Amino acid sequence: MSSNDSIEALIELMARLPGLGPRSARRAVLHLIRKRGPLLSPLADAMRQVADSARECLNCGNIGTADICDICTSNKRATGQICVVEDVGDLWAMERAGVFKGRYHVLGGTLSALDSVGPEELRIPRLIDRIPAEEVTEVILALNATVDGVTTAHYIADRLQGQVRLTSLAQGVPIGGELDYLDDGTITAALNARKEIL
Amino acid sequence: MSSNDSIEALIELMARLPGLGPRSARRAVLHLIRKRGPLLSPLADAMRQVADSARECLNCGNIGTADICDICTSNKRATGQICVVEDVGDLWAMERAGVFKGRYHVLGGTLSALDSVGPEELRIPRLIDRIPAEEVTEVILALNATVDGVTTAHYIADRLQGQVRLTSLAQGVPIGGELDYLDDGTITAALNARKEIL
Repeated sequence: MSSNDSIEALIELMARLPGLGPRSARRAVLHLIRKRGPLLSPLADAMRQVADSARECLNCGNIGTADICDICTSNKRATGQICVVEDVGDLWAMERAGVFKGRYHVLGGTLSALDSVGPEELRIPRLIDRIPAEEVTEVILALNATVDGVTTAHYIADRLQGQVRLTSLAQGVPIGGELDYLDDGTITAALNARKEIL
Repeated sequence: MSSNDSIEALIELMARLPGLGPRSARRAVLHLIRKRGPLLSPLADAMRQVADSARECLNCGNIGTADICDICTSNKRATGQICVVEDVGDLWAMERAGVFKGRYHVLGGTLSALDSVGPEELRIPRLIDRIPAEEVTEVILALNATVDGVTTAHYIADRLQGQVRLTSLAQGVPIGGELDYLDDGTITAALNARKEIL
């Protein structure tokens, strides 16, 4: 066994990260080796810790280091509102905005006939169970505005109809967005949902 | 301490890798957490192993996992030729080409008056010591074709003049390169170094 096999193995694993290819993985590993003290060693420890402790929240599907995540256990979060998102990445994006003070439900994907993803695969039954259990009054469907996302939102709305208030995120022109760069669908949605200027 | 601090810490460390920013680091960490078994755990182990074992070769400055690197200890490599490169990344690039069968000397940078990098910082004394010790007959200066690279090559050539054969990599049109996309300097160098077609 060559003494460089461990470096080669590290490069191969790094190349499997999204956004890195073989060439940039080599560059990253070289950078890590140069900074073994301040960067590589802490990174190895952080990865080991996350690998050992990260798990999905049994309640909402968020990723954390406990069986029930921070958001579900926090007494600062309103229990009456659930924001349904496709993915943990979407939950993080909502949290960065810092505006939503309720709880989340992470589906873990969207319904897809092609990939044979049904409601059972998507934590939808768990969502339905949470409505009475947590005395939820509003479900905000914050799914992506894709075909699969809209289909999934429709399915969930159908299942929960009459039990809770159902809302979805507003569609329109993004803050800082330029009309010239927006697609027709967004402009149509923004025009249809136009508001009075007081 | 929030139970998510370890995930946040991992994102922050990942964002310090070249080619990754805060956003892509988050995406990478999310990907790693989803694949904790097949990817995150082996990656943590590989990083730990490299962090503990990677070191610079005492002879040539290459990075390996032993005090003297594979290339310096290999009996398949010619000892009479030394290829001088700026950086381990350049050594790896030469090795990928697989054409050079001698040994290397990694300077670890280039001379730079601005950054006050002198010959002592660059493993140049060690290079000079190696010439008689390894009975070197040819030194190939494979430094980058930048101002600092050329300056450094001149300095080394000056120091070794008369002791060994001194060569540098040929300059010209890259294989697969299109004239239209080449800079004037390269075209000039290629024209000046034009060869007879037999």
